[in-house]
Amino acid sequence: MKPTSENSKTIGIVGLGLIGGSLCLDLQNLGHKVHGLAHRAKTVSRAKERGLAQVIDTDPKILHDCSVVIIALPLAKILQPDPKLIEALPPQAVITDVGSVKSPVLEVWKNIHPYFVGSHPMAGTEKAGVEAGQTNLFKGKAWITTPEKETNSESIEIIRELALSLGSKWLTATADSHDEVVALISHLPVLVSAALVQMITKEGNLSKLNLAKELASTGFSDTSRVGGGNPELGLSMMKNNTSKILCLLNSYKQSIGTLEEALISEEWEKVNQILKTNQIVRRNFMQEVK
Amino acid sequence: MKPTSENSKTIGIVGLGLIGGSLCLDLQNLGHKVHGLAHRAKTVSRAKERGLAQVIDTDPKILHDCSVVIIALPLAKILQPDPKLIEALPPQAVITDVGSVKSPVLEVWKNIHPYFVGSHPMAGTEKAGVEAGQTNLFKGKAWITTPEKETNSESIEIIRELALSLGSKWLTATADSHDEVVALISHLPVLVSAALVQMITKEGNLSKLNLAKELASTGFSDTSRVGGGNPELGLSMMKNNTSKILCLLNSYKQSIGTLEEALISEEWEKVNQILKTNQIVRRNFMQEVK
Repeated sequence: MKPTSENSKTIGIVGLGLIGGSLCLDLQNLGHKVHGLAHRAKTVSRAKERGLAQVIDTDPKILHDCSVVIIALPLAKILQPDPKLIEALPPQAVITDVGSVKSPVLEVWKNIHPYFVGSHPMAGTEKAGVEAGQTNLFKGKAWITTPEKETNSESIEIIRELALSLGSKWLTATADSHDEVVALISHLPVLVSAALVQMITKEGNLSKLNLAKELASTGFSDTSRVGGGNPELGLSMMKNNTSKILCLLNSYKQSIGTLEEALISEEWEKVNQILKTNQIVRRNFMQEVK
Repeated sequence: MKPTSENSKTIGIVGLGLIGGSLCLDLQNLGHKVHGLAHRAKTVSRAKERGLAQVIDTDPKILHDCSVVIIALPLAKILQPDPKLIEALPPQAVITDVGSVKSPVLEVWKNIHPYFVGSHPMAGTEKAGVEAGQTNLFKGKAWITTPEKETNSESIEIIRELALSLGSKWLTATADSHDEVVALISHLPVLVSAALVQMITKEGNLSKLNLAKELASTGFSDTSRVGGGNPELGLSMMKNNTSKILCLLNSYKQSIGTLEEALISEEWEKVNQILKTNQIVRRNFMQEVK
């Protein structure tokens, strides 16, 4: 799968955290020349030690030669890009991002660069920072693009080929559908799980809290995981996809209410039916998830 | 850790599913003689093939020689025991159970047998049935007992020794504390997660549902796991620990409401604080969970 010298590219990666660092490693392995831009000198020196890219610097000028630039920053920084970064983007390069909410990203970036393509690789681990990048992070994972009418189709094709070369599954949706769906499968679970973690802080009786600690096992661990995850990531989801999350939350509260009423009125056949349906629904829904 | 012939016991296991079958295997390995009681002839024949116990039958009379009997049935059946089972329990034997809610079990069993000790080994896998039993299921896991004033202390000691010999961590609590704590760490998560799974069934737009299927990854999978689990188990939790679950659910709804209000009024610093606290709280809480 190594590109010939003809299709080997110079690719700029902005941000050398989990996603950026992982892109660097895979793209180098595929024979591309990678220029990595970091914010802090300390990150640059560690990224150099790790060999994340051939050129690594805090100066956006290193992007000048790049034919593709991937903005792999946290969502908040994608939405408020540094003017020096914007200035350094080559006018003919294809630009894409990795932000987990797409409508606000398109709103900002369609006015910044004519060859911008909004995209979202659905890959991640619990890790963050310059140590987090790893090879094959994108293999088998969805990489979704959310083009608009104005989006340049050749630019989309270039990003598609890159995503496929990383082993990703390429998907296309409107930004609105994407944001609605990630609200359901990613942002709502964070909120639901966060409220569960809050229940621990509410338990004022220390001996019960200690007993809970002793007895908690995988059930609690799994259900509370995303609600006790990276706060920066959680906050950026809530901030940038607020209306879609609130709409789902309203519906979620109704589901909780239905179960609560069934418990209060001891409608056990109803609870049984919900749980039986859930088992089948979830099994079908998750069957393709690794 | 093999018992000498002196302390080798004849132990009856009632129910040969995940917990019962696993007990059978470990107790045999520890040198005890195990008598396994199953409900169906088909289970008996498969349990014999698997070598789960030295004596396996559908006739409760096989419990006559046992000095310890462990009732490893689903909670509903522990609470409504077969009269023939009760009749077959040796009057001098120590009896214990494995039910996940303890107050209603004590309520029933303290009138059935003088040497009954309520207990709850906190171990499990996704599996069920006669194929599910495995060795070392209890190793490193909590095994909690919920004695009352009237509970015979020598009987507790016998169950404690058995649990320790299986590698479990022995804990003692009141039935009320136990039930409150499992409502928090086990039953509430099922409910919270079940309401999340219901959100999939509510999504009427097929193309969005398919996109959601494509994009769902570990975050959704983990948060929805217990809500899409064994319906029989979920129902028995809801049915037998209803008031404690409802009390926590009320508090959970308030937590959801706090987050919702913060999103509506765009109080991002508040959301940030909640998520930051959650990360620390969960990390401390889960540190001892394998």
